[in-house]
Amino acid sequence: MDLIFGLHAIIEAIEAGKSIDKLMLKKDLSGELARQLINLARQREIPVQRVPVEKLNRLTRKNHQGAVAMLAAVTYYKVEQVLPAVSDEGMNPFFVILDGVTDVRNFGAIARTCDCAGVSAIVIPEKGSVTVNGDAVKTSAGALNYLPVCREKNLQEAIKFLRESGCRIIGTSDKNSVNYTQVDYTGPVALVLGSEGKGMSHEVMRLCDAFVAIPEFGNINSLNVSVAGGIMMYEVVRQRLEDGQGVN
Amino acid sequence: MDLIFGLHAIIEAIEAGKSIDKLMLKKDLSGELARQLINLARQREIPVQRVPVEKLNRLTRKNHQGAVAMLAAVTYYKVEQVLPAVSDEGMNPFFVILDGVTDVRNFGAIARTCDCAGVSAIVIPEKGSVTVNGDAVKTSAGALNYLPVCREKNLQEAIKFLRESGCRIIGTSDKNSVNYTQVDYTGPVALVLGSEGKGMSHEVMRLCDAFVAIPEFGNINSLNVSVAGGIMMYEVVRQRLEDGQGVN
Repeated sequence: MDLIFGLHAIIEAIEAGKSIDKLMLKKDLSGELARQLINLARQREIPVQRVPVEKLNRLTRKNHQGAVAMLAAVTYYKVEQVLPAVSDEGMNPFFVILDGVTDVRNFGAIARTCDCAGVSAIVIPEKGSVTVNGDAVKTSAGALNYLPVCREKNLQEAIKFLRESGCRIIGTSDKNSVNYTQVDYTGPVALVLGSEGKGMSHEVMRLCDAFVAIPEFGNINSLNVSVAGGIMMYEVVRQRLEDGQGVN
Repeated sequence: MDLIFGLHAIIEAIEAGKSIDKLMLKKDLSGELARQLINLARQREIPVQRVPVEKLNRLTRKNHQGAVAMLAAVTYYKVEQVLPAVSDEGMNPFFVILDGVTDVRNFGAIARTCDCAGVSAIVIPEKGSVTVNGDAVKTSAGALNYLPVCREKNLQEAIKFLRESGCRIIGTSDKNSVNYTQVDYTGPVALVLGSEGKGMSHEVMRLCDAFVAIPEFGNINSLNVSVAGGIMMYEVVRQRLEDGQGVN
């Protein structure tokens, strides 16, 4: 993992536009520069963690001045940045929102499929999601070097923004759902995939326009989330091609 | 891995119907019982490997008499057994043939999807394929405890049998292929998925009735084989449900 040490160096990196996964600050860190860094972090929505100085010392023997930043393996975006760009390029918005997917291999596999299916961006929450590290980039077969990742401090607000901008929010759930092929995906759309164990969160479910499920006919009946994502994404592709649209 | 040692014990296990992954015999093993075992192995199409006695000694300290058998984690079938059973139960045959998939995790994930999609059986060649071990069963989320696995000494003969029995053999290839949604899967069908790196073998390609591909619109354009398998299997499901058929 790429680390940056020291108050000045971290401030410079943030101002230069580097994506920071997490900022770790010594518990009792204070002073003018520290205040400046903390304000900057708040402004850019970078998660800050207060830790004992021993934890920082274990990360580096260099003079860290009580501050260590972990560089993200990808550049993070916001849906507010990506959606206008998608529209400007004349593309039909197609977002994939991961509500709590934590397994790095599943995340990488989903990103790989997103790239192939022409997805506009993958959206993850800041908390309770996967860390987009080198392993994720590797499992994605490099897709994460191209596919925009929107990391949102407030996932619900991001979904509301997509919805108000005209995207239909399609959730996945076993209850009150229709067969995933029965929904129209030819317009702007955002698919929400829930976590491997618990499914979607209640807060996100409230924001969905429709719920779909993939029918299962076997004995174990639990599709892997990356396979389920692939099946749903390519139903979107199938419908758009059949509709005579190009795919992004 | 479950091992069985000794000539008598192995012969008994085979006669009791246990599936054996591989039989390892001491290089210069001879005698009446050994001949009996070797004949039995040939008859049941169990792969036999001749090894130095030191290799067997490393596997066990027990008196192995020059013979060690590795028990399979699942019971192997033959397509000649499965197809009539499928037809007898009034089900529409749906086979998934893996031509050289060697990654255990991919194999397990494919088996998991096969279970959910109501696939009749998964077909693998004896050589150049994955070993269906405990890891495979675990990655399959238990699907391999239900889904029949046909392990075929001669994959081409097995495919010919399926074809002569009325299954359309659908290969996957980038060349000379149509969009996978443009083929009719409502009748008896066998999908062939190639190996992760090399795709399908030429011998198997010659036996295919049609070739399909999943369209890709991104930068990396390489779907994972288990995701690609899921997309194709659920296109079969979609068409059969739309056709008013039940799924197995």
